[in-house]
Amino acid sequence: MNWLKNAWYVAAFANELDGARVVARKLLGTAVVMLRHSDGRIAALEDTCPHRLMPLSAGRRVGDELQCGYHGMRFDVNGACTLAPGQTHIPPKACVRSFPLVQRHGLLWIWMGSQDRADARLIPDIRWNEHPEWTSSRGYHHVEVDFQLAIDNLMDLGHESWVHLRTIGQGEEECIPNYPVKVTVRGEGLIHAHREMPNIEAPPFFAMILNHSGRIDRWQTAVSLSPSICMTDVGIYPVDTAPEEAFRGHVLHLLTPESATTTHYFWAFARNKRLVDEELTQAVYQAVSQTFDEDAVILKMQQSQVEKYGAAVPRVAMRVDEAPIRTRRLLEALVKRETEDPGFIYRPELMIDDTTPPLAMAQARGAQ
Amino acid sequence: MNWLKNAWYVAAFANELDGARVVARKLLGTAVVMLRHSDGRIAALEDTCPHRLMPLSAGRRVGDELQCGYHGMRFDVNGACTLAPGQTHIPPKACVRSFPLVQRHGLLWIWMGSQDRADARLIPDIRWNEHPEWTSSRGYHHVEVDFQLAIDNLMDLGHESWVHLRTIGQGEEECIPNYPVKVTVRGEGLIHAHREMPNIEAPPFFAMILNHSGRIDRWQTAVSLSPSICMTDVGIYPVDTAPEEAFRGHVLHLLTPESATTTHYFWAFARNKRLVDEELTQAVYQAVSQTFDEDAVILKMQQSQVEKYGAAVPRVAMRVDEAPIRTRRLLEALVKRETEDPGFIYRPELMIDDTTPPLAMAQARGAQ
Amino acid sequence: MNWLKNAWYVAAFANELDGARVVARKLLGTAVVMLRHSDGRIAALEDTCPHRLMPLSAGRRVGDELQCGYHGMRFDVNGACTLAPGQTHIPPKACVRSFPLVQRHGLLWIWMGSQDRADARLIPDIRWNEHPEWTSSRGYHHVEVDFQLAIDNLMDLGHESWVHLRTIGQGEEECIPNYPVKVTVRGEGLIHAHREMPNIEAPPFFAMILNHSGRIDRWQTAVSLSPSICMTDVGIYPVDTAPEEAFRGHVLHLLTPESATTTHYFWAFARNKRLVDEELTQAVYQAVSQTFDEDAVILKMQQSQVEKYGAAVPRVAMRVDEAPIRTRRLLEALVKRETEDPGFIYRPELMIDDTTPPLAMAQARGAQ
Repeated sequence: MNWLKNAWYVAAFANELDGARVVARKLLGTAVVMLRHSDGRIAALEDTCPHRLMPLSAGRRVGDELQCGYHGMRFDVNGACTLAPGQTHIPPKACVRSFPLVQRHGLLWIWMGSQDRADARLIPDIRWNEHPEWTSSRGYHHVEVDFQLAIDNLMDLGHESWVHLRTIGQGEEECIPNYPVKVTVRGEGLIHAHREMPNIEAPPFFAMILNHSGRIDRWQTAVSLSPSICMTDVGIYPVDTAPEEAFRGHVLHLLTPESATTTHYFWAFARNKRLVDEELTQAVYQAVSQTFDEDAVILKMQQSQVEKYGAAVPRVAMRVDEAPIRTRRLLEALVKRETEDPGFIYRPELMIDDTTPPLAMAQARGAQ
Repeated sequence: MNWLKNAWYVAAFANELDGARVVARKLLGTAVVMLRHSDGRIAALEDTCPHRLMPLSAGRRVGDELQCGYHGMRFDVNGACTLAPGQTHIPPKACVRSFPLVQRHGLLWIWMGSQDRADARLIPDIRWNEHPEWTSSRGYHHVEVDFQLAIDNLMDLGHESWVHLRTIGQGEEECIPNYPVKVTVRGEGLIHAHREMPNIEAPPFFAMILNHSGRIDRWQTAVSLSPSICMTDVGIYPVDTAPEEAFRGHVLHLLTPESATTTHYFWAFARNKRLVDEELTQAVYQAVSQTFDEDAVILKMQQSQVEKYGAAVPRVAMRVDEAPIRTRRLLEALVKRETEDPGFIYRPELMIDDTTPPLAMAQARGAQ
Repeated sequence: MNWLKNAWYVAAFANELDGARVVARKLLGTAVVMLRHSDGRIAALEDTCPHRLMPLSAGRRVGDELQCGYHGMRFDVNGACTLAPGQTHIPPKACVRSFPLVQRHGLLWIWMGSQDRADARLIPDIRWNEHPEWTSSRGYHHVEVDFQLAIDNLMDLGHESWVHLRTIGQGEEECIPNYPVKVTVRGEGLIHAHREMPNIEAPPFFAMILNHSGRIDRWQTAVSLSPSICMTDVGIYPVDTAPEEAFRGHVLHLLTPESATTTHYFWAFARNKRLVDEELTQAVYQAVSQTFDEDAVILKMQQSQVEKYGAAVPRVAMRVDEAPIRTRRLLEALVKRETEDPGFIYRPELMIDDTTPPLAMAQARGAQ
């Protein structure tokens, strides 16, 4: 697969390793098992016994070690074999590959490329997932689609009215694609697709969040940071209030390829208001989860069609494809450089959002 | 696949498109979606959005148009794109392939070959499905078998006693294969396999139909018209009555390849007596449906064995294979001509049955 | 597959053909159907009608013959066609391949190689399955694993403590791999792997069998006779008694490849004591069956991993692999000779066990 290898990918939410839990997950085509040492260190090992290939996750955890369920060989968090029953000498090859794993912003980040290039400073700043000024609703979807098609879908601001008719798209929203989207490349792997919808009727979900039933200004910015992070910056505020006071949601879409046709989708909807309202946290979770269920149905169908036709999509490019296509080109260029230049290391932009809200709408309205 | 391309195939029963129904069906390996326009026109389109390959049938019908469920693009019954949300210019490539579709004898006929060669006069006359002098019991079976093996089975008059032991084959019938079958080629794609069974015990089903419990004369003519139509002409009458008064069934077997290993089987049992007896229509439906269920089991098993052995059947030709093999040769010759001669167009025989009943039996009995 | 072709393999337990039963089973990749003639002869035919490939086992038995369920062709126990409905001449090719099948020691042995080389004197002596001085608990497991990996597992005396933790491995047993195993090649295809465990605590199952709760001497000898027979000779006796009086179990593992990834596993645990204790026979059956269920889980997982990684196991050889690897080498050498030398015929050792118990343990204890 044309995945960028030397990059950090999200492997799990940090709390998945709470207690003595062992998490097995295929990442970029490789079976990985993760656990947290009792001293707090976290570890990711290839989930395969070097002897007869048994998944270590099918054995059991003994203290801070993993024991193979076939012949009892034990491996520590570095992948070294500490016990081979029936023999004292342990062959040097009887060890397990380990992967750099770093905890940051409530997430575990894994580096599947060259181990000596793993530099935790290259982890992008997506602090909204775990930050005192934001409250997150988090979830996970297993999506049966090629990673790239999942990113296409997130960068495409034109499908809401049909795919999400029952959740975030409604009556008024039918015309969403008619609001222009401005696409800008912000860096080597960073792209923004921005749309403003001034003075529209608030869909019920937003009306509930704002506790306001009149007209609102609304913006959406779909952000992609190659290779694997998307973020949707959503802003809403009543037309008679200041944009700086907007309710903002930063929706993190953290996509990690599982295989050529399946993708791990870790997500979080972080909001900047009503931070301690647990009921709202749940309501957002439900709404977002249902929205992504709708995407999953469409994506699985598209994947199945792409395989059936052996054809790339889009077959004919429409305007909604502008951001997806430009996003792909950035990633393809990075993969090409990585493949051709052994010394190349991709340094993603660390700051990916606009901290101040877009003001064009208020100005536009002022000029009306 | 070696399918004859320039030919009409049955795509559906006409009433499947009643109301605003949309029917999606794979035909000759291609996904097709069919609907009837409110002005009565019928249309068959490739069931694939030209944008991102989504099946149009997975979206919804809006008036007389199909709307893709992903980005809301709409297509009319000719396959032209009438709406692309978010843009006014519609690229010329954003259209869907359409196929000629004709309604005749209560059936919808599709032409998957070169569109400019579709000529509705080439549709064979199988009027019995919908004709004032005949009453039909109709059904559909999805059969997991190569189209060709399904035709083999229909042209083979030797398997009743074993496959259909519980339906149309019984005690007396054990000796059916001992009655000789006469195979005659009637045209470029037309073949008849005819058998007469004078003076035999009526099996219960026929006794019920005739309301007669004594001995009968019985004939069977298996007809094949390349590439996709079989018809079994069944005649029965009490030995002391005139053959011209026989109860006749014309069993239509309309086979359309779905894929290399699956076949659509539309069927109708049309009878020439007791035309308004709805109870009989139902009883015939039940009996025929059960009989074809029995065939489906055998055919699926045969298909599975053919795939497993990678071998063609029959491996050794028996007498029951005469009509199947001659039928195949006609079709193979047609496919060869179509492949080799770009100007060739197959003109099937339009009349496929013998309108007068075979009299040999009565004559033979007279001579006894 | 690299199976030894000219060899006897177990096809069934003899009683599977009791009455008019017909057994269909794929053996070494070939579909076979077996039955017992009313005169006592047993027959194995290829389970495929020569006409249209239908499995004969999907038809029915008529007297001592098999009748195809499609056109009623009948075949006798030699595979000759005795009836072809609708014709008197039977083509010479309309016959079914038969395989030599011999009943011995309560088992049916099949020869899938060159028919003229089948010599019943080459069937190994595994009399324990059916012998007045032994009582057997018998069973069958269908194992989803390559034949060779199943043999590896049987010759590997190191996995009990982890795989069989709930059955034959317990507390004391944790250290089993620390008792040395001595591997000896006894013949062209015969290998013994022997371990003695003097003066250990009796695991509950053995305590129950011996009706003795103190310490015991215990031995295990894993025997492999290429290509398809393994036998575990298990001996236990209280430390204060004579080894000649030991309770011995001869566990027969009769493995026949079904396909490249699945194996028939016929097994019998024959014991030399408490011969008429039916309750013990049942208890042994339960314990062994559960033990092999545990193996089946591990083996299926290993097979799946081997396919996924496209890699041979072991990837790194451990001490527990000594006997499995030497066993493989014997079989590989036999297959190589069979492939390269058309005149070669493998003559397996007929006697595979040591009739006297190993005395080293008692001597060792005397020397303590």
